Formats: sequence, C-alpha cells, structure tokens
Amino acid sequence: MNFLSVNDASVDELIALAQHYKAHPLTDKQLGENKTLGMLFLNPSMRTRLSTQIAARNLGMEVIVFNVGAEGWALEFDDVAMNGNRSEHIKDAAPVLGRYFDILAIRTFPSLQNREEDYSEQYINQFVKYGNIPVVSLESGTLHPLQSAADVMTIAETFKEKRKPKIALTWAPHVKPLPHCVSNSFAQWINRWGKADFVIANPEGYDLKEEFTQGASVLHSQDEALKNADYVYVKNWCSYETYGAMPEVKSDWLLTLEKLKLTNNGKVMHCLPVRRDVELSAEVLDSASSIVASEAGNRVWATQAVLSQLLRSIKK
Amino acid sequence: MNFLSVNDASVDELIALAQHYKAHPLTDKQLGENKTLGMLFLNPSMRTRLSTQIAARNLGMEVIVFNVGAEGWALEFDDVAMNGNRSEHIKDAAPVLGRYFDILAIRTFPSLQNREEDYSEQYINQFVKYGNIPVVSLESGTLHPLQSAADVMTIAETFKEKRKPKIALTWAPHVKPLPHCVSNSFAQWINRWGKADFVIANPEGYDLKEEFTQGASVLHSQDEALKNADYVYVKNWCSYETYGAMPEVKSDWLLTLEKLKLTNNGKVMHCLPVRRDVELSAEVLDSASSIVASEAGNRVWATQAVLSQLLRSIKK
Amino acid sequence: MNFLSVNDASVDELIALAQHYKAHPLTDKQLGENKTLGMLFLNPSMRTRLSTQIAARNLGMEVIVFNVGAEGWALEFDDVAMNGNRSEHIKDAAPVLGRYFDILAIRTFPSLQNREEDYSEQYINQFVKYGNIPVVSLESGTLHPLQSAADVMTIAETFKEKRKPKIALTWAPHVKPLPHCVSNSFAQWINRWGKADFVIANPEGYDLKEEFTQGASVLHSQDEALKNADYVYVKNWCSYETYGAMPEVKSDWLLTLEKLKLTNNGKVMHCLPVRRDVELSAEVLDSASSIVASEAGNRVWATQAVLSQLLRSIKK
Repeated sequence: MNFLSVNDASVDELIALAQHYKAHPLTDKQLGENKTLGMLFLNPSMRTRLSTQIAARNLGMEVIVFNVGAEGWALEFDDVAMNGNRSEHIKDAAPVLGRYFDILAIRTFPSLQNREEDYSEQYINQFVKYGNIPVVSLESGTLHPLQSAADVMTIAETFKEKRKPKIALTWAPHVKPLPHCVSNSFAQWINRWGKADFVIANPEGYDLKEEFTQGASVLHSQDEALKNADYVYVKNWCSYETYGAMPEVKSDWLLTLEKLKLTNNGKVMHCLPVRRDVELSAEVLDSASSIVASEAGNRVWATQAVLSQLLRSIKK
Repeated sequence: MNFLSVNDASVDELIALAQHYKAHPLTDKQLGENKTLGMLFLNPSMRTRLSTQIAARNLGMEVIVFNVGAEGWALEFDDVAMNGNRSEHIKDAAPVLGRYFDILAIRTFPSLQNREEDYSEQYINQFVKYGNIPVVSLESGTLHPLQSAADVMTIAETFKEKRKPKIALTWAPHVKPLPHCVSNSFAQWINRWGKADFVIANPEGYDLKEEFTQGASVLHSQDEALKNADYVYVKNWCSYETYGAMPEVKSDWLLTLEKLKLTNNGKVMHCLPVRRDVELSAEVLDSASSIVASEAGNRVWATQAVLSQLLRSIKK
Repeated sequence: MNFLSVNDASVDELIALAQHYKAHPLTDKQLGENKTLGMLFLNPSMRTRLSTQIAARNLGMEVIVFNVGAEGWALEFDDVAMNGNRSEHIKDAAPVLGRYFDILAIRTFPSLQNREEDYSEQYINQFVKYGNIPVVSLESGTLHPLQSAADVMTIAETFKEKRKPKIALTWAPHVKPLPHCVSNSFAQWINRWGKADFVIANPEGYDLKEEFTQGASVLHSQDEALKNADYVYVKNWCSYETYGAMPEVKSDWLLTLEKLKLTNNGKVMHCLPVRRDVELSAEVLDSASSIVASEAGNRVWATQAVLSQLLRSIKK
C-alpha cells in the first residue's frame, strides 16, 4: 500500500480519521512504536516536512530526515552510463532505503522541461518499484495528495450548511513557472469527494490536464468562477499545453478584497508558501476571509491519518 | 512568555535552576512530554544548536530542527510585493509554525548594514508577533541571552570568594566585522546580576550601545581593564557608532599570557567559535586560565533552565 | 575505547553480535537509554548516516546529526593564525562536543592531495585527542571500518561451506579519483578475520599500501583473481604510489556477466554508491549474483554491534 494520489485513499474515511486525530492527537501513540519513517527530500519543503514529522511522532514512529542532494549523493533515475554528476542510481539506493525504513516519504519536484517525463512520475514511481516498502508522496511530479487531504478536511470541517458548497479553484499570477501538483491534486480530490459544486478558473492557455479536472467546470473568467463561491482556492500554475511556459495574461488575476465581494463571503485558501501582492493580495491574506493558517495546521492531522492507515496495513 | 533577553529572566533563579540540572540532568524528564520544540536556523550555529537539542531532550521534549533557507524557503520580513527571491512571508509562516510547535527557538543574525533595522529586532519580533507561542532567542539581531545565561552561571559556579569578582569584557581583533549580540547581552546580564565589578575595554570607536553597558565602566585601555580582573571575557565586535565598520586600532589588543599577568589569575572566557591567534592567542586558550570549554558545556544547563520555565508557563 | 579500525574490534565476536541484533533488533533497547550519539558530517553520506541512526535508536540512544560545514562553522585542523575561512579550531570544538555527547561519530574524507597528511588521520585523530569521549569512524582519511564490519558479516552469513571462501577484491574504473578507505579497510578486516583465501587485483600503479594488504596476494590480472572466486568485491581507488592520480589502464577492468563466469558462481559486493556501467556493469548489479543491497542492509547490524560495545565500555 502506498499513498501517491486520491486513488490510494477513501476520502470520507480519511477526513473522519483526521478529525479524530485533531481532537485526540496521541490516541494512537503505540501504533508506530519501533517503526521508522524515512523522509527523503530531493527538493525544499517547510509545511510538509514539519507536519509529517509531527504526525509521525504523534503515532510513536521514529523519523529520520535525509536531504538527498545536500547530505548524500545526487540520484540518477535514467538508465545511462553514470559518468556525470550523479553518483548513485535509484535502482541501488531504493532497495537499501527499503531495508532501513518501514515507510518511505519522498519529496520530488517536476523539471517542467519535459511533460511526458514529469507526468510519468518516474521519480516517485521508481522509489515504489525498487523500494519494496510503502511510499508516501510529499509532493511528486504532478500531485500533492497530503496537501489535498488537508484541503478537503478544511472545507469539510468549516462548511456547516446542508447544501453543497461552491468551490472555486482560481489561477493566480506568479514570477516564475510553478508545477501543477497542488492544482491537479486539489481538483482530483474535490471531484472524488463529490460533495461540492466545483469550478476552476484560469486564463486561456492554462487549462490543467483533463484527467484531473474532469467533473469540474473549467472557465476562463475569474469573476464568473468567484460568483457565490463559498471557498476560493488560489494557486498559480504554469501552462500544461505549452508545457512549463507562462503565456501572457490580459487582465488582472490577482485576488483582492474587491473581487472577493463577488463570493458568498468566501473563505480563501492557499497551500503556502504564497507571494504576497504577487500571487495573492496581502489585504486578503490579512483579512478574516483567509483560512490559510488553519488549512496548513490541518496538514498534521491529514498526514497522521494517512500514516496510521499505512501502519495498519503493514501490521496485517 | 518568551526568552529574548535578560528582561525575560530572573538571573539568580535561573542560575540556581541551571546548577540543579547540571547535578540532576533528567530530574524533569516528564515536564516536556508530548511537547515539541521547533528550532529554526536562519544562520549557522554549533553550540547553541546542539546544546539546545540536548537540553530539550533532557526535559523529554520532541525537537524538530529546520534550516530555514537551505531546507525550506527564504523568508521575507518586509511589507513588499514579493517578486524577488524570497518566496514566503513571515506573516504567513509564523502562524503555521505556531500551530506545529509548542515552543519556537530562532537563530537570526543582524545584517550589520542598517543599525536601526538590526536594533529593532524585526526578525525575531515578527516571529513573536505572528507565531502566538513562546519564542526563544538562539541569538538575534542584538542579543544572545542563552549564551549570557551560561556565562553568568559559569562565573557564579567558579567564583568561591565572598567579595565581588572583577569582570573585564575586552574587545579583541578579528578578520571581519562581527555582531554586538554576545557583548551587548553579556553586559546586560552582568549588570542585571549586580554581583560583580564590571569593566568593559574597547578601542575608541568601538563603544557598545549605552543601553546595554550602563552600570559598567567603559575604558579604552585594555591594560587598565585587565588589572586584577578575576574574569576576562574576550570578544570581537564591530563599531556601533559607524555601524558595521572596523575602525583601525593602534595597539595590539590580542590577549596573551603576558597580558594576563595583569589580572588576578584571571579566568579567560569566550563564547566560541574563536579564531586562534587572531582573536585570542592559542597559548591562552591552551592554558589552565581558559575556561571556554566548561563555559560552553554550561550552555546545556542554562538552556534547560530556560526551557523548563517556558514549559511550566505553558502548562499554567 | 574508540572504533577507528579493525584494531578496535574482535572480528568474530562483532560478527556474532551483529547477527544477534539482526535476529533481535530491539533486545538491547535499554542499553543506550539517556545516552546521546553525536554524528558529525564533514562530508556526504547516505548508508552510513542512515544505518547508524537506526542502529543507535535500536539501542535506545538519542541521536543528534550535525552537518559541520553547512550548519555550523568550517573547522581548522592546523596550528595557524586563523585569518582564513575556517572560523573554529578542532582544539576548541572537540572538547565541547565531548561535553555534549556520550559517543561521537565522525565522517571525514581525505584530501587526496597530501598522502602523508591523509595517512596521518589528522582529522579523526584530533577528535579523539581533544574530545575525551569514544569516537566512531563513519569513514576517515584511510579507513571505513563500519563498512568492513558489515562486509565480513555478509560473507560470513552467506557462505555455508566448510572450506575457506575465495574472496577477490578487484579494482574498477571510475570517472574521478576515489579514496582508499573502503579497500584498505576491507583488506585489513579480511586479513584479520583469517578465514578466507584472499586475493586483490588491480592494474599496475594502483597497489594499495602494503600495511593493509599484507596477507593477501596482490595480482595485476583481474581474470586470474576472479578464477573460482566465491566473492568479488568491486571498488575503485586512486593511486597510492602517485598519490591521488589515476594512471591510465590498458585493458577493460569493468566487471561484466561474461567475466563473472570465471568465478565459482561468485557473489558480487560493493559498498555503494556505485556508478552503473562505469564502475560496475548494470547487468551484474541487476543479476542474482549481486548482494549489494543485503550488504548495505547489514550496515545497521554491524554498527549496532559496535555501538553496543562502546556503550558497555562507557558503563564500566
């Protein structure tokens, strides 16, 4: 059993378990006793890094963090004669890691150079293939399922009405091209959850891959998407079509308090880190509409739920 | 409750508690159970990093270390449109850290470019403002209170006479401009402690800010300061007046065994790291007069005392 | 008591203890209670870093990892006026580390610039001299004893016949000059173990220092060495004679499946990381003949045996 996407989860069950841990963090402190989580970072991470450590410790697990490139050896993932800068192959590293740890958690970013390669998830999939132990994605080439689990949990716990909430995922400006992971994954989870009216707004040229968005309405007008939205998820991503590019955008897509008036007193979400007054206006982030901090706080509980399920699967 | 300066401590009480932990390291092993200390490094650290981890574990706390820039995202502290290299704002990061940890310990250095900015302690103060949990300084823009707590403890435990010891804090040469933190803080703590004759010696142009030194005699002659000193605290610092500069110094300020003869068999202290034969002569460091290693060893106990007080304040 | 080479071990006893821990990892979980292992890295490490952390935790020890240069201060090991880039001297750092930890584990690489300096083991020896606590080598200037302990254990546990196994250590090509540590140490351990027919094969100009190889036959023909070998240990190293150089090699020294036919169904070992199709052919690594992953897995148990002996020596 791995945790690489929504396909490895039962959304409602996971949310319920996460809420349970939020109320009772240490209730399963014995579950992970004498089990070790190896956390491998091929790329930077703050929230994911810290919340996963806390979640694992809440379950009584040992945690060992390893910054692959900085502390060890740069990894090779292709079948080549290794005469370059990468001194260790995933085929040799992964089986060793699989012997050292009980669960392996991995952070890798896409190159944004080669769409086919990134979307093949060649990095994390080789850890799965050669590691022989459960693998948890701490964000991979195309998805960020731990983030999405916390996102859905945050919506579920804050929406108190009987009707379905309207959720708008809106593209936002940025200074450099960013991966699709958070957006793909959010779309995938909300669609699978199935308890929302879900709309995605982005400029033309920025449509996400349909595989992830299907079930949602994809609009090219932010204003239309914002109308009566209960939740506005703000995020930049680069072009999927012209892969890795940032096609020019006509109008201003920066979410402001003024624009937020279109919503139904909409709560604003973002995975963080966020660039203030570039990707999201500071006034929105500093307003009562923003729930980004409690969303980030929920990362602990969602991850604890995921790890506890993996631990239980190991023990079977 | 935070620990940012001597103003957050009762000096005698803290020393007594530190001595207690030195004799009985594990006596409060239950106190920090299921509490997590987050240690954030925006700058390098050895003694502070290691001694704080040990102190926290002695109290049963979990410890999570995070090298902010290298492992995560460079932090922005100013209110600007974030289109540069810093991808996360302290206003968004701190509330998340405040949700993950029970106590937050932070290492930041001053820029030495802008005196007003450094002396406003804008970095650590924003962690306090937006973090909503106790913050411990692991050295900030202008102070290094954990170092000073260990320094005073070291003097108190080694001075056995009934009279007041004479303590001389003396400027020392260096190859590059260094912060005022250790010196400001040492002066502040010795003055607050009030149980010493305290003199500070530095070349003209190197006077520390009076706010921290008041209570001590400030001399421009090292020889005069060394006379009959029981303790000689050696440290380089850059100019406060011409902020960040290293005005030329006429005579030789390097402490030697010859100069040490002026003292009353004076014990030599330094916070470390120290540049041998630049900042302090190797012969002095290798002599029986040096107590720098046991001073550094006391970092564990002083920090354990500080953390235990914060833990008790949380539980109230 | 330290662990710097085979001279600090009783080989058979260590292997037996390692096998015991492999079968019962947590049997001595109380042994290291309230003891702290400080792991200092002056150079990169993956297997050694991770397996040592796991071994220490299996013994109930606390572990603190410190990347010396990146997280702290660059260390000076020579007696010079410290006006360069290194801001802390080993003479001042080591006594502090000796106060913070119960056991100190250190990774340093040789410069490959100055043979005399590297072979004096000046780095790790100064930690021993000034640290005043047991020091464990995580690979030093000339040796890698934890690797060798796991290597011998791996051979001992896989060889089931009553006769002595034939072991061939063979030089392999590489893109850059590598240290002698693994090869010196392997030779030293196999010779000390004394239960094998041991042959070393390397091109002319690549003879290892006799101090470590004596007891083995040193050949310049790989084919001859491979004949009937039960184990083939593959490793690159630079020249000892023309220190740090890579004298040109006539024939192809890359181990292939074809060449492996010369052996007695020989098992292939390597310390990892390995450069595929440069140092060792991918086909060999991917074949059933390779035992590199289980060899790396044994690093945990060999290290656990070493640490447990040091812990017992402390308690006496």
